[in-house]
Order: sequence, then structure tokens, then C-alpha cells
Amino acid sequence: MSLIVQKYGGTSVGTVERIQAVALRIERARGAGDQLVVVVSAMSGETDRLLGLARALHNPPPARELDVLLSTGEQVTIALLAIALQARGIPAVSYTGAQVKILTDEAYNKARIVSIDSANVSADLAAGKVVVIAGFQGVDAKGNITTLGRGGSDTTAVAMAAALKADECQIYTDVDGVYTTDPRIVPEARRLDRVTYEEMLEMASLGAKVLQIRSVEFASKYHVSLRVLSSFSDGPGTLITTEDNIMEAALISGVTLNRDEAKITVLGVPDRPGVASTILGPIADANIEVDMIVQNSGADGSADFTFTVQRNEYDKALAICQATSAQMQARVVAGDKKIVKVSIVGVGMRSHAGIASRMFRALAAETINIQMISTSEIKISIVVDEKYAELAVRTLHSEFGLAEE
Amino acid sequence: MSLIVQKYGGTSVGTVERIQAVALRIERARGAGDQLVVVVSAMSGETDRLLGLARALHNPPPARELDVLLSTGEQVTIALLAIALQARGIPAVSYTGAQVKILTDEAYNKARIVSIDSANVSADLAAGKVVVIAGFQGVDAKGNITTLGRGGSDTTAVAMAAALKADECQIYTDVDGVYTTDPRIVPEARRLDRVTYEEMLEMASLGAKVLQIRSVEFASKYHVSLRVLSSFSDGPGTLITTEDNIMEAALISGVTLNRDEAKITVLGVPDRPGVASTILGPIADANIEVDMIVQNSGADGSADFTFTVQRNEYDKALAICQATSAQMQARVVAGDKKIVKVSIVGVGMRSHAGIASRMFRALAAETINIQMISTSEIKISIVVDEKYAELAVRTLHSEFGLAEE
Repeated sequence: MSLIVQKYGGTSVGTVERIQAVALRIERARGAGDQLVVVVSAMSGETDRLLGLARALHNPPPARELDVLLSTGEQVTIALLAIALQARGIPAVSYTGAQVKILTDEAYNKARIVSIDSANVSADLAAGKVVVIAGFQGVDAKGNITTLGRGGSDTTAVAMAAALKADECQIYTDVDGVYTTDPRIVPEARRLDRVTYEEMLEMASLGAKVLQIRSVEFASKYHVSLRVLSSFSDGPGTLITTEDNIMEAALISGVTLNRDEAKITVLGVPDRPGVASTILGPIADANIEVDMIVQNSGADGSADFTFTVQRNEYDKALAICQATSAQMQARVVAGDKKIVKVSIVGVGMRSHAGIASRMFRALAAETINIQMISTSEIKISIVVDEKYAELAVRTLHSEFGLAEE
Repeated sequence: MSLIVQKYGGTSVGTVERIQAVALRIERARGAGDQLVVVVSAMSGETDRLLGLARALHNPPPARELDVLLSTGEQVTIALLAIALQARGIPAVSYTGAQVKILTDEAYNKARIVSIDSANVSADLAAGKVVVIAGFQGVDAKGNITTLGRGGSDTTAVAMAAALKADECQIYTDVDGVYTTDPRIVPEARRLDRVTYEEMLEMASLGAKVLQIRSVEFASKYHVSLRVLSSFSDGPGTLITTEDNIMEAALISGVTLNRDEAKITVLGVPDRPGVASTILGPIADANIEVDMIVQNSGADGSADFTFTVQRNEYDKALAICQATSAQMQARVVAGDKKIVKVSIVGVGMRSHAGIASRMFRALAAETINIQMISTSEIKISIVVDEKYAELAVRTLHSEFGLAEE
């Protein structure tokens, strides 16, 4: 008998009929002998509806009261799912975050889980009940309702799995797993059976939005086996786990594409300490998030400095940078909004040399010009003109044989 | 400086605009120097929407989960009202029933309040905040969410007022007070400035549905001054209080009409002990509520026994009664669905004789035949043919001079 934590997102519980389908899925898992804890999100559209009401009164809405408001979304779903389960004759009980209780810090709208008191949940499981828990929410030490921020239901599920030492945490979504790349770009893209936490983190942060990054970090930290699978079809999905649990890691697990990038280059900055912080300080002060950063020092005592930001922050970042560069007598500031970032991710990189050069050679064969390069332990990212986006992804997917088992 | 508990029902908080109007009303009361606790219901329509979702899954829905579901309705309103208040620059904080905490028994869907821990609320009031509390809900000793049943928000307001020893509990509704009778029947009907708890209880149970009976009982028990007033217009409303606080009680305070009555008569029942329970036992077993009961013993050793029920239970009650009367050899069972109950209510009856005969004389002058009579300490009720309903009410309203100040 396994203890499984399942999590269903807003689309999976968006209507009465879908809630009934989830109840049926739970009944089957239970029939197979598993103990089940089910974490649910608000019905799709509900959070936005509530947010709309709040904003009509005060925008932005005060943080504490917004959490009181938004947390009702998941509370509705836990009650409805528990009712649907009981309608099938399955003993079920619902808990809000406060009832569990999921203790968080006091950071309304983006609280972090401090601890979970799972005694009641364990007792209910022992008594044969399915326990349905509201995702996304908790309670601070003073009893105020808090929320974990958008997508926080994934984190709730992983945290419950860690607290209960569950055998597996299953995240049901509208896709049937993690793919080697976006199947809309590469039809041969293949669902991965297994992927490591590190790879998943790199893929998630690079644009494969299957899972919330925080939940993967949490799973990695507490060694929770995490499985992504579809709530609309059957299939094993993708297991996200430690490297130890993957017999032979592939060289490369996936190719990711991020279109939401724009780059800014400051040419001829003085090649001396403090330049990077002089340029990026005002950007950070303006709350603009910087993604890639590359600096090349030339032979003439000056350097070229390039970084990327999200496209909708490009104009703001460019204006800030122009002001800064004037002060530091840089030669020129240039920018480009029509770029994309393409990355290959794989723990196999750690033990295999030559992956980068193989990547660059394949792109060169297609005469794709590389504008920026950035590498981490298990990832190589490049920036190319956006017109090459799909071609670059297809070329790399093919080069590293990702379509093959 | 007074401490006031205000309660706004679903219609008063049914839209964003109405919530803003409530916030404005609270701002004015606060400007007058009062400390304010505000109890709110779910936005109108919300409870029915949630109930619809639950029933689509399981009808009737399991009690515990229904309370988890329905309690979200008020939680949405407390957050929105607190947000609306903060938008006006008024410090405000919201509490669910569990957060207050309002401890109840474990009777889901119809819980009774056991105690209220008002320490947090008092601290917030002392800090100058408006405290917004979810009506209708509480939490049992094990931390399960409970609800007080429909209309329970009035009870929450009165209970909070009692716990806080508030100076007044104001119930905002869509009427501007308690009237001497239904103004749709008698245009001269007058708003009462003051009425006693006892009178209000008799009026409420007789069909003047301004306040939930339980909340009036609660107010009476804890001597909470209760005021009914309109959330859509200004005016003093009606104060419901102890007899001591009413300088000179009127002879009669109001005339009420209940159209939802049907009567059943068993003629010629043996005049011996146990007859009433023989007839009414099976009725109670069928969960049919009986209102008036009248028995007259004749000279021939047999008696006539008459009682009234709600009209929609008439057919069921009649069938039961026919079966019972056959067993006890009663002569005949007769019934009538076209009757109404008209009552006069007033604490003045206690100290004035002759009110009943004055009532009967006035009705006789209009040739209205009285079918049943039932009296209590401060009320006289009669049953008449429904075609006389309005005439009887107008006759009595005029006879006792209720239109005059």
C-alpha cells in the first residue's frame, strides 16, 4: 500500500463534471490500494473573478484581505470534491490550509511554508478516508490566512508529501508529462519517462511551464518523487526524481525555447572593477529582472557588456542604461527586442565533454548566428535572432537524438 | 463613544457598489465617534449558487462539507468590505467565524453558539480599527467549520454584541423598521419606534419576517438592544428592547397575518385522556409542524379537535389524520386550506382586560366569522376564511388605533 499525494489544478476541477471525473480517478487509485491525499486549486476562473471584485474596490488590494478573499477559491473546491467523493460512497474529509494546519510566515500573497502539522491527516488516512486539502493557502502564527502566491498549490502538494513521507506526489495537469521540447515546434518531441530535479528546474525556469519552480525546489530538497501527468488521459507521465533513481542519464534531456527575451549591450565600457554593478544597479533598483549576463573584455582596456531582460521591460531598461552609460562614458548602448534564448539541458553534460562545441557546430551548419552564450553545470543557453527560433530548436533536438527512446 | 455592532444582509452587500455604500455608512458612523463591529452575510445569490454546485454532486450534500462550502460566501464579503473600508482610508480587519473565534456545537448546518472569544476583536477596536466579521459561521471544538443555518448572520451579530457588551446591535435590512402591520395591506401602517422582545418574537413567528427569531431570543436573553433599520435609506428604524425601556407600552403593537395555514378538524373524538397525542403523534412522526391546536369538549362525551399546519403539508397531514381517526372511531375528519391566521400582539394585554372581546366585536361588526381562537399572554390569534384576510387586518388595525402616534 502506497501513500500518494495527488494535486489537481484549476482546469481539472473547473466544472461539476470535471470534479466528478477527478472523483472517479481517485476511486480507481483507491481501488488499487493506495492511501490518498488530494490537493486542489480553485476552479478555473474563480481566482480571477475574486481578484476582479477586489480590484474594483481598491487596486492593488490590501495584502491581508486579498488572502482572506482568494483562499475561498480553494475552500469551495475541497468541499465540492469531498462531496463528489462521498456521492461515490468514498469516505472523504476536507481541510483548509488553516485546518491542516499549514503554518507559513507572515508574507501575505507570497507566504512560505514553515511547518505542517499532519497529525489529523494521518489519523484520517489511517481511518480509511481520502483527505482533500486546499492548495495555495496556509495560516501564520497569529491565525491570519496567508496564500503562497500563484501556482502555490503545487508547493502545497509537495510539502504535504514531504510532511507525510508520501511515496509519490502526482501533479495532474493538462499535459501528459515533460517533453524533450515543445511538440508544437518539433512534432517528434518525446515524453520523458524520468528527469532529474536539476534538469526540471532548468527547464521550468527556461519556459517549460509544467510545474512551479518552487515546488520542484521543494521536492528536490526533501527528496519527494514528483510525477507530472494528465488529468484528462491515462499514462505514466514523467517522474521527476534524484539522479540516483535514473539508471542511465541521457546526455541531453531537453531543448527549451524562451521567446520572452530582449538584450541590451553597452559597448566600450571601461574595463575596471565595479562596471557590472554600475550598469545593473539602477536596473535592479527599478525592479527589472535580468536573465543572462555576458561580459567580454577587449584588448584596448574597454569591455562590451550585454544582458537580457523580459521584453515588456526592454524600453524601461534601455532608458535607464542610456542614462548610466552617459555617466560612465561608454561608447554606445544598443539593444534588440527580436531575440530568443534556446537552451539544451542535461545532467549528462557533467560527465561528457564536447557538448557545447557539438551544439555550436550543428547551429553553424544551419548558418544560425549565435549572439550570446551562457553556460551552467547542466545547461547551455544561446541567444539567436528570433527568426531562427524554431530552426534552432529543431536542429538541436535532432542533433542530440531526442526523438529516439 | 458607543460600541455598535452592525449587521448587513446579502442584499445590502450584493454588489461592489452596495459594498461601497456600506463602507460609506460605516465611515459616517465612525465619524460620529462610534466603535464599530460589522457582521456581514454572503452576497445575495452566492449561497444559492454554492448550494446548487453541491446539490449537482450529491443531494442532499453531506453536512460537514456543505458548511465548508457555504462558509466561503461570508468570507468573500468580509474581505471585500474590509478592502472597501481601507480604500476609504479606514483601518479595517476581517475575521472568519473560526478566527474570532465563535465556538459552536457540532451540529453542522444548524449549529448553536457556545461561546465567543472576543479578545482579538476588542484589541482591534482599541487600536481604532473597524472589525468585519463573517456572519452565519463558527467552528466546533475540533476545528471543523460549522454554520448556524439560514439567517444565522443576525444571530452572529447579536451574539457578538452580547460578548462585547455593545451598546446596540443594528440589523440593516431592506425595510426601514418594524411596522404595525403589512403596509401593502394597510397603507396607514406605522413604523414602530420601539417594540419589546416578546412582541417582536410573536410578530416574527407570526409572519413578520424582518428578523430571525433566534436572534431576537438571543437578544432578549442577553439584554442586547436590537435595532432594525434600512441599509438603503436613513432613519431611526425600530428599537427592540426590554419592556423597561419603553415608557408607556401601547395596548396593541401590531397586527400580523399568516396566509400559510391550513386546518384539519377531527369531529366526535372520544373525550378521554390521550386523544391529542393519538392524533398528533403520527403527525409529529412525519415531521409535520403543527401551529395552532384547539380542542372543545362537547356535552355528549365526545370532542372536536382542530389544528393547523403549513399549507404545503396539508394533504399529507390530512391523509395521516384520516388513518388515525379510523382507528379511534372519530365521526369525521374535515379540512380547509383556504384559511388565514390574524393576530394582534401587544404587551399591553397583560394589564388590560377586554381586549379579546373588543377584537371579536370589531370583527363581528364586519360579519367576519371566527373559526378558531388561540391566545397567549401577549397575543390573540384567530383563524378566518382567507377571503376576509385583508378586511380582518384593516379592521383590527383601525380598531386599536395603530395608525396614530
